[in-house]
Amino acid sequence: MSNEFVRIAEIARRLRRDSADVLVGIGDDAAVLRAGDSPLVVSVDAAVQGVHFRPELVGWRDTGFRSLVAALSDLAAMGAGPRAALLALILPDGFQDGLLYELIDGLAEAADCYGCPVIGGNLSCGAEVSITTAVMGQAPDRVLTREGARPDDYVYVTGTLGDAALGLRCLQAGRTKGAEAFAERWRRPVARVDEGRKLTDKATAAVDISDGLLLDLGHLCQASGVGARLDASALPLEEGFRRLAKELGCDPVRLALSGGEQYELVFTAPAQAQVQGLGTRIGRVVAGSRRVEVFDEQGRPIEIEEAGYTHWRNR
Amino acid sequence: MSNEFVRIAEIARRLRRDSADVLVGIGDDAAVLRAGDSPLVVSVDAAVQGVHFRPELVGWRDTGFRSLVAALSDLAAMGAGPRAALLALILPDGFQDGLLYELIDGLAEAADCYGCPVIGGNLSCGAEVSITTAVMGQAPDRVLTREGARPDDYVYVTGTLGDAALGLRCLQAGRTKGAEAFAERWRRPVARVDEGRKLTDKATAAVDISDGLLLDLGHLCQASGVGARLDASALPLEEGFRRLAKELGCDPVRLALSGGEQYELVFTAPAQAQVQGLGTRIGRVVAGSRRVEVFDEQGRPIEIEEAGYTHWRNR
Repeated sequence: MSNEFVRIAEIARRLRRDSADVLVGIGDDAAVLRAGDSPLVVSVDAAVQGVHFRPELVGWRDTGFRSLVAALSDLAAMGAGPRAALLALILPDGFQDGLLYELIDGLAEAADCYGCPVIGGNLSCGAEVSITTAVMGQAPDRVLTREGARPDDYVYVTGTLGDAALGLRCLQAGRTKGAEAFAERWRRPVARVDEGRKLTDKATAAVDISDGLLLDLGHLCQASGVGARLDASALPLEEGFRRLAKELGCDPVRLALSGGEQYELVFTAPAQAQVQGLGTRIGRVVAGSRRVEVFDEQGRPIEIEEAGYTHWRNR
Repeated sequence: MSNEFVRIAEIARRLRRDSADVLVGIGDDAAVLRAGDSPLVVSVDAAVQGVHFRPELVGWRDTGFRSLVAALSDLAAMGAGPRAALLALILPDGFQDGLLYELIDGLAEAADCYGCPVIGGNLSCGAEVSITTAVMGQAPDRVLTREGARPDDYVYVTGTLGDAALGLRCLQAGRTKGAEAFAERWRRPVARVDEGRKLTDKATAAVDISDGLLLDLGHLCQASGVGARLDASALPLEEGFRRLAKELGCDPVRLALSGGEQYELVFTAPAQAQVQGLGTRIGRVVAGSRRVEVFDEQGRPIEIEEAGYTHWRNR
């Protein structure tokens, strides 16, 4: 069995068709289709019980909210504003009505937050709960892709790193003291839609870091044909993050770099770009290697083994 | 636990938002969004292993083909032409690469048949295989909905009825003699995209009959606030259909009326509409009851208990 990324590449090879209509096809955060005046940006995301969420850790309402945000984050990474969503729900026999409606209310709450109504869907039975959301958005003339990073661009990240990953560890460990803000970041993530929109004429490339900063920045580097050098001491970490991470036995820097289910954006922009207030500078794009390297304050490389989340490995 | 249709109504109530952008929301075959010059028609459909398909009955390639056709049939029912699709695949641990690529090749074959490239997707692990396809299409100014049927319209159906349902029974029973054409109709269904497009300025309402003619025509009647009276002797049945159905112990008329996974369109049109070559006339719309009634050649009502397929009942 091949790994997730080998499979995606082979699937893309089999499905790819040349079409003047398709402005961005398989392989980016979202696909882009020519439609009227402004490009239509579309993406689909699935959340599977036991893989992406565990009802014993968070309620169904939060699970619904998170599911839509995860899909909207892909639109944000392309610089697109949400228009509408479709929902395909699979529910096992005997799934309670009350829980279903909690899930729906969480989705509705996210839909209202982002002005992205759920306009259609599909309901099926199956062995386990899965929540698949397809989202449609519209972008200005230019969309952000993973492909435009150039040597000497700076690397930036929105918000702070690792909060949601730390929040999940707190939930898993039953830790509550000092943990509520982090748990909340996991339960109620933010899709960086506004930042994405503002970046369309500033950034050279962008990706959301839902699988972890190192893994997703690695995809951006591959797509752009460049490498990246990050400065660990520049990583934006929330107040109290280091302390709580250490208390839970995690290395804060490793958690910030490889923790999944963060919906921040990593983007690259030339030195002169006006990106104040949109993100924190964490490194620089370099020619050559297509690898992401991280250095400590003394300029020593930091080795990170677990780059981020992949399917059919952690299970 | 409520049944599927009660749930869908309650989900729709919780998700519905007034928006001038949303031309058709939850409750029709597809949703319609304002986008540039011509409406964007979108729909999502899921196929779950053990519920919608059984790999022991048909290969993965056919399963892939059928999955996309099922979604495209929803566009056809709105009179929309396909533009592009998204694919969300859930695969269990250990699912073989070779089978995955057969599935993908079947999807690609359907994509080529209908000029609907798969432009993006998502790959996750889960307990069982599910194939969710979101499709986007574009319609002329007017889309077909379930709402416009009027008393004294005629009721029509495209193609022939019950073939796919009979084909599935042949496959399940291991029957091959005289069954190949029917089995093929199940393995390789046709989405009535051309017919749907031609009907946009002729039909008053339409629905695809993926859950069975009686059930889906019932939805059309509910949405339009009308009833329908069908003439059993007018149902278009394939050569040999009655004989083979009887050999397998099925009542041909009941199978034609309630068999699921047919992707024909049922539509209504006024008597003067030019719909020759697009469908067979099978009945008439009546004021009042919102029910579908079927009569035999002598004008006697035929009672059909199993109207069609619903989730969380047949399982």
